[in-house]
Amino acid sequence: MARAISVVENRQPEARELLAALFPHAGGALVVGVTGPPGAGKSSLVDRMTARLRGSGRTVGIVAVDPTSPFSGGAILGDRIRMQSHATDPGVFIRSMATRGHLGGLAATTGQVLTVLAASGKDVILVETVGVGQDEVEIVGTADVSLVVLVPGLGDEVQALKAGIMEIADVFVVNKADREGAERVVAEIGSMLMMAGEDAQVPAIVQTVATVDEGTEALLSAIEEFRRQAETSGALARKRRAQLRRQLEDAVRQRVMSHLRQRVLSPAEAESMVDRLAARELDPFTAADELVRRLGLA
Amino acid sequence: MARAISVVENRQPEARELLAALFPHAGGALVVGVTGPPGAGKSSLVDRMTARLRGSGRTVGIVAVDPTSPFSGGAILGDRIRMQSHATDPGVFIRSMATRGHLGGLAATTGQVLTVLAASGKDVILVETVGVGQDEVEIVGTADVSLVVLVPGLGDEVQALKAGIMEIADVFVVNKADREGAERVVAEIGSMLMMAGEDAQVPAIVQTVATVDEGTEALLSAIEEFRRQAETSGALARKRRAQLRRQLEDAVRQRVMSHLRQRVLSPAEAESMVDRLAARELDPFTAADELVRRLGLA
Repeated sequence: MARAISVVENRQPEARELLAALFPHAGGALVVGVTGPPGAGKSSLVDRMTARLRGSGRTVGIVAVDPTSPFSGGAILGDRIRMQSHATDPGVFIRSMATRGHLGGLAATTGQVLTVLAASGKDVILVETVGVGQDEVEIVGTADVSLVVLVPGLGDEVQALKAGIMEIADVFVVNKADREGAERVVAEIGSMLMMAGEDAQVPAIVQTVATVDEGTEALLSAIEEFRRQAETSGALARKRRAQLRRQLEDAVRQRVMSHLRQRVLSPAEAESMVDRLAARELDPFTAADELVRRLGLA
Repeated sequence: MARAISVVENRQPEARELLAALFPHAGGALVVGVTGPPGAGKSSLVDRMTARLRGSGRTVGIVAVDPTSPFSGGAILGDRIRMQSHATDPGVFIRSMATRGHLGGLAATTGQVLTVLAASGKDVILVETVGVGQDEVEIVGTADVSLVVLVPGLGDEVQALKAGIMEIADVFVVNKADREGAERVVAEIGSMLMMAGEDAQVPAIVQTVATVDEGTEALLSAIEEFRRQAETSGALARKRRAQLRRQLEDAVRQRVMSHLRQRVLSPAEAESMVDRLAARELDPFTAADELVRRLGLA
């Protein structure tokens, strides 16, 4: 499995064939996204959820999307090490994905790694992102169920940061709920939700203390309940279709760009086109028109 | 100008013509990216730099890439409000860009907004991102000069977060340098840089206290010095060419996808293709092959 994921991550030539072969078998897993600001305790939660899921006989895949230092060759967070308690369990597969070298393609690659994990038969896949940027939101937002983890006592700017990830929450988790201010965070989320539209499923708010395994069972129940409702309402099927549409568009884009590079525009021609752009004699839109014509599409 | 930016941000039909007309005039500005973890004081720094640049007669554009709440319709951070001290200065143009609704296209849109600002004749454009995800890194990394702002006393996880943005730093800023631990942060950056390759320009490390305007002049000098060296070495020209190549690819992709939607695949056909994907009877790669054939490209 680790080798298969590496093939996909490194975009090796055999990735396409591998993914096409695995795709028919990749529909069975429940994908749970876990996001939230740094320090919210996401890895501890993932650890606790994994233990409970294993206790009930379910197999688990964990994908941790990590920022990576080009100098250290891979930042390992302390939290990650803790998760290694599951490392010897054959029912758990853990994979860290470095964001380095994936500029712009991180979401696409993560989707493909999920295909590999799901096809391997994992019942539940937990996708944790450390960042709070758009790529991370996109990754987690395309999960079947998205958890947004908050904690009491974060500063104002961090609280503002969470705004961008509010809209993807299916379940809110207030972790470190034994700290002062937990009730206020719950109340704040509640009042925000009151301002939201009435058409959508109202997200549950679950309080946890991951360090002492408090609230883990309630969180898993909330996830299961969301899944059940989303299945009944058709929301889950719509989400999955949107995700497949994106995968298809990605594949088409990749094909077209490689066709352009291999058949239409020689490297020398491409360079001279960029020369003219750099000299501002040509603009990117007029240049794109020319390329689209040469592709025979206009 | 605000209207022109809105046309671009909302991808209105006239955006293409507008951008093509502005592009030849958009080569003159120095674009400075400002990124770093939440709470590092980026907005205060931008504010101070703006004041100094105005003092030396230069015009300034500010683009603040902000996460936005779907509920409040636009989170305004306290720091942003402070920047409004420049709001009545005709030599300063400030624009907040919400990340909401830009999933996946934020970097492209930001590039186009920079074209509008540069064409308007702004001497320096400061691009500040609140997030620390890949999209934000990409936006800031494509600036002519990228600042990474750090502060003493951040927790371990936040320090790990910075790893992902280290590689884009042209100039490091240790802000709140009057706090305990500032020297240690400077030393840590220094030892990381020692492990980096010798081929690249070594980033300067500047200490600032933005709240009392300390170090602002030194920071502007470091930026100017980086620009001078990067101009001499050709690194700046290479960076700008890479950025233009991305803009061209974006434009081609948009054209091809709209051609596909308008001429090749009816909405009904697209839906039935997604039906087959959802039933896992068809995989995205085989489906993409079929679409590429129908585009006449294979």
